[in-house]
Amino acid sequence: MVKEQSEPALADEDQLSLDLIDAQYALKDTQDQPNAKSVLVLVSGIELAGKGEAVKQLREWMDPRYLRVKADAPEMFNNTQPFWLPYARFIPAEGQIAVMFGNWYGDLLTTALHVSQPLDETLYDEYVDNMRAYEQDLKNNHVDVIKIWFDLSWKSLQKRLDNMDASELHWHKLHGLNWRNKKQYDRLQKLRQRFTEDWIIIDCEDEKSRDQQFAKHVLRALKHCPEHVKSAQHKWKQADIPAVLQQPPVEKIDKNEYKLELDKLTRKVADALRFGERNVIIALEGMDAAGKGGAIKRIVKSLDPREYEIYSIAAPEKHELRHPYLWRFWNKLQPNERISIFDRTWYGRVLVERVEGFASDVEWQRAFEEINRFEKDLSDSQTVVVKIWLSISKDEQYTRFKEREKTPHKRFKITSEDWRNREKWDEYLHAAADMFERTNTDYAPWYIIANDDKYSARLEILRSILKQLKAD
Amino acid sequence: MVKEQSEPALADEDQLSLDLIDAQYALKDTQDQPNAKSVLVLVSGIELAGKGEAVKQLREWMDPRYLRVKADAPEMFNNTQPFWLPYARFIPAEGQIAVMFGNWYGDLLTTALHVSQPLDETLYDEYVDNMRAYEQDLKNNHVDVIKIWFDLSWKSLQKRLDNMDASELHWHKLHGLNWRNKKQYDRLQKLRQRFTEDWIIIDCEDEKSRDQQFAKHVLRALKHCPEHVKSAQHKWKQADIPAVLQQPPVEKIDKNEYKLELDKLTRKVADALRFGERNVIIALEGMDAAGKGGAIKRIVKSLDPREYEIYSIAAPEKHELRHPYLWRFWNKLQPNERISIFDRTWYGRVLVERVEGFASDVEWQRAFEEINRFEKDLSDSQTVVVKIWLSISKDEQYTRFKEREKTPHKRFKITSEDWRNREKWDEYLHAAADMFERTNTDYAPWYIIANDDKYSARLEILRSILKQLKAD
Repeated sequence: MVKEQSEPALADEDQLSLDLIDAQYALKDTQDQPNAKSVLVLVSGIELAGKGEAVKQLREWMDPRYLRVKADAPEMFNNTQPFWLPYARFIPAEGQIAVMFGNWYGDLLTTALHVSQPLDETLYDEYVDNMRAYEQDLKNNHVDVIKIWFDLSWKSLQKRLDNMDASELHWHKLHGLNWRNKKQYDRLQKLRQRFTEDWIIIDCEDEKSRDQQFAKHVLRALKHCPEHVKSAQHKWKQADIPAVLQQPPVEKIDKNEYKLELDKLTRKVADALRFGERNVIIALEGMDAAGKGGAIKRIVKSLDPREYEIYSIAAPEKHELRHPYLWRFWNKLQPNERISIFDRTWYGRVLVERVEGFASDVEWQRAFEEINRFEKDLSDSQTVVVKIWLSISKDEQYTRFKEREKTPHKRFKITSEDWRNREKWDEYLHAAADMFERTNTDYAPWYIIANDDKYSARLEILRSILKQLKAD
Repeated sequence: MVKEQSEPALADEDQLSLDLIDAQYALKDTQDQPNAKSVLVLVSGIELAGKGEAVKQLREWMDPRYLRVKADAPEMFNNTQPFWLPYARFIPAEGQIAVMFGNWYGDLLTTALHVSQPLDETLYDEYVDNMRAYEQDLKNNHVDVIKIWFDLSWKSLQKRLDNMDASELHWHKLHGLNWRNKKQYDRLQKLRQRFTEDWIIIDCEDEKSRDQQFAKHVLRALKHCPEHVKSAQHKWKQADIPAVLQQPPVEKIDKNEYKLELDKLTRKVADALRFGERNVIIALEGMDAAGKGGAIKRIVKSLDPREYEIYSIAAPEKHELRHPYLWRFWNKLQPNERISIFDRTWYGRVLVERVEGFASDVEWQRAFEEINRFEKDLSDSQTVVVKIWLSISKDEQYTRFKEREKTPHKRFKITSEDWRNREKWDEYLHAAADMFERTNTDYAPWYIIANDDKYSARLEILRSILKQLKAD
């Protein structure tokens, strides 16, 4: 625990302001550079300790155009979205700084203190672990996170409450806690100590010192130059390539039988997808021309477009590259988006970005765990994740490429890039093999489906969706 | 009304697909070019007419990576947000195409048909007028809008309902209308005829012809090359510059009196801002160094940062320039954002963009009406818009610039650009004068406040907020 010495000497405020602005501009200049980073400041604390005042003061000392303050009243967890989802779109882009108060810790405390059945300690600590893991992922992806707790003794809190006027008191009451209740205060302190071990604690008895301490910690974070490690320490242990990828088995099926079964299965899938209050994410991956588009067509056959959204993932835009690579997927998730279908996914990080060298060794090697956590957080919040890899043989890809080239209205699907990727066929197979070995989890297993014969594959795709939805 | 001839000859589907893809890529290539545009397709119609099927078919004929389909179940208007707000962030960027079904017309129909007290016809028609005006604004800002109604006779609808299986029927019922009720069907037809005059109507008896007609209309829209008119037809009639801008009166105030009054007013403003369920937008404009930052500091003095959000508006980012200029402000509005403070605003269009030539004559001249509509839509949906212009004299600006240059931690506030802008002082005054004359509306009047003396100005700012909130 980092605890400030009480009563530090007051700094020259103008100098502090100048240093903050200089650091802010230096941060801004890192944008699109190799050492780029952003700074996220999480703020929580005792009511009336003065975090609001400290943030206002910070805003005056800095250039307010480049300091985003996101402040919301805490909300209770409702289990239908990961704790980070309401905040993810405000995670600052490279070169930016954001102060969030309103954040996942505030929500956790509110949830723990408010529900008639309080969170049990194991679950509470699990949340804290998940939050720390999420923050570590942010840091690894160039978002520096600092966490600052504004503390105030019971005695001072009571004194400040005595001095408030009615309308302010009224507003503060809206936040739902009774700050006159010593037991609740003690409980809050006990609870927050379960997560503030790696926080900066600011003692808020003295207002001036409080604001300056806060600003100095922000300054330190702005100036901190993390080294973006690019190369991995250890030699990578390559997984074996599964047989189904090397030579996908071809299972021919009778055309009439196929049609009957397809019709039955598309309806069954539609029913299963509609069932219940959960969300469903269907993630499709595979080599070029593996048949992802055709698969989607059959999945949504008996659905109305108002029931689902399809995301066709192309290369990231420039402004998206200023964020952690998962960010553009966080932003596509909405708590009430019932059915989302991804034509290519976040696995691009460990496939194309690995093979083409857009992600460094250490980045793609770390990504497996990051992706697992991402999917775990989703499946823990009523989202079923169905991951499908469509496997075709190299010969079949050649046939389909040639077919596309011959057909004018399909020619857009085949570019010189596809031919270039094809030359790296084995590298992609290796990448896929590693991906299966490391992201084939209980909660989000991979369904590898041989697709040289489209007909049997389509049925298999529908069956695997039913299986993952436990509707088979 | 554009009504298709029934039973047109079927086109060669492959050719249609090829044409669509070519047009799609040509559209994509306009991005960042002078002739750039986007295409927004609004789709509505009778249930089971097959708009979902037609959209799915379109997705197969086109490159799905560059076709966004946004489909939501309709929602009733709740009067706390303009009709366009839930959809604004999905308006396609230049070079893109989006199909929205789920749109404001669907919401209007749902509202008109569902409430126990139906919308009266005047209000209904007013909504339609506002929607058309909004779409015209989109078109003027390079978003082509086409609207397509999928029609189906009562008889065919009943036949299709007979042929549906139970689970689909169950899903369709969720949309809240009873499609077995002839009276309701007739009422819907009557209501939609009040807005479909400028729509394309597709008769959906025949499925194949329906899908092709739809695709052909989209193709036509993609290929349509609107000329972006740049120069205005008429000579601009310049407004007179108000005296308060030419020579802002200086009202000196006693320092002690000031402090007492400031304290009283900041609390009063906080109370007034917190009062009621409405949203408040405070928009601050003025020359460089006019004191906007200082004004904001006093406005939020007695508020907690969780109660408000401050937006400091800098020049638009490259990806924002691919949208109508109001788009980045639409995206900052949230239905439950109680208090939003803008340090510079959408008036940039008629100030800096006009003076610096970033907006063409015809663009900034049109913007006054666009902005008035924007603010009217907001004030019609429980949002109070407070617009404040801080007026300083040219001499006072000089003093403040020099002061900034002398003070190291304020130097960031003064750049060579500020000195350049100062040379265009008179042009900015002319632009401001026109702005006052044309956007000083009943629902969102301008408060012009002389700010050579900061102290009296601060009190005046707070008083004008109270006045606009009807709390003075």
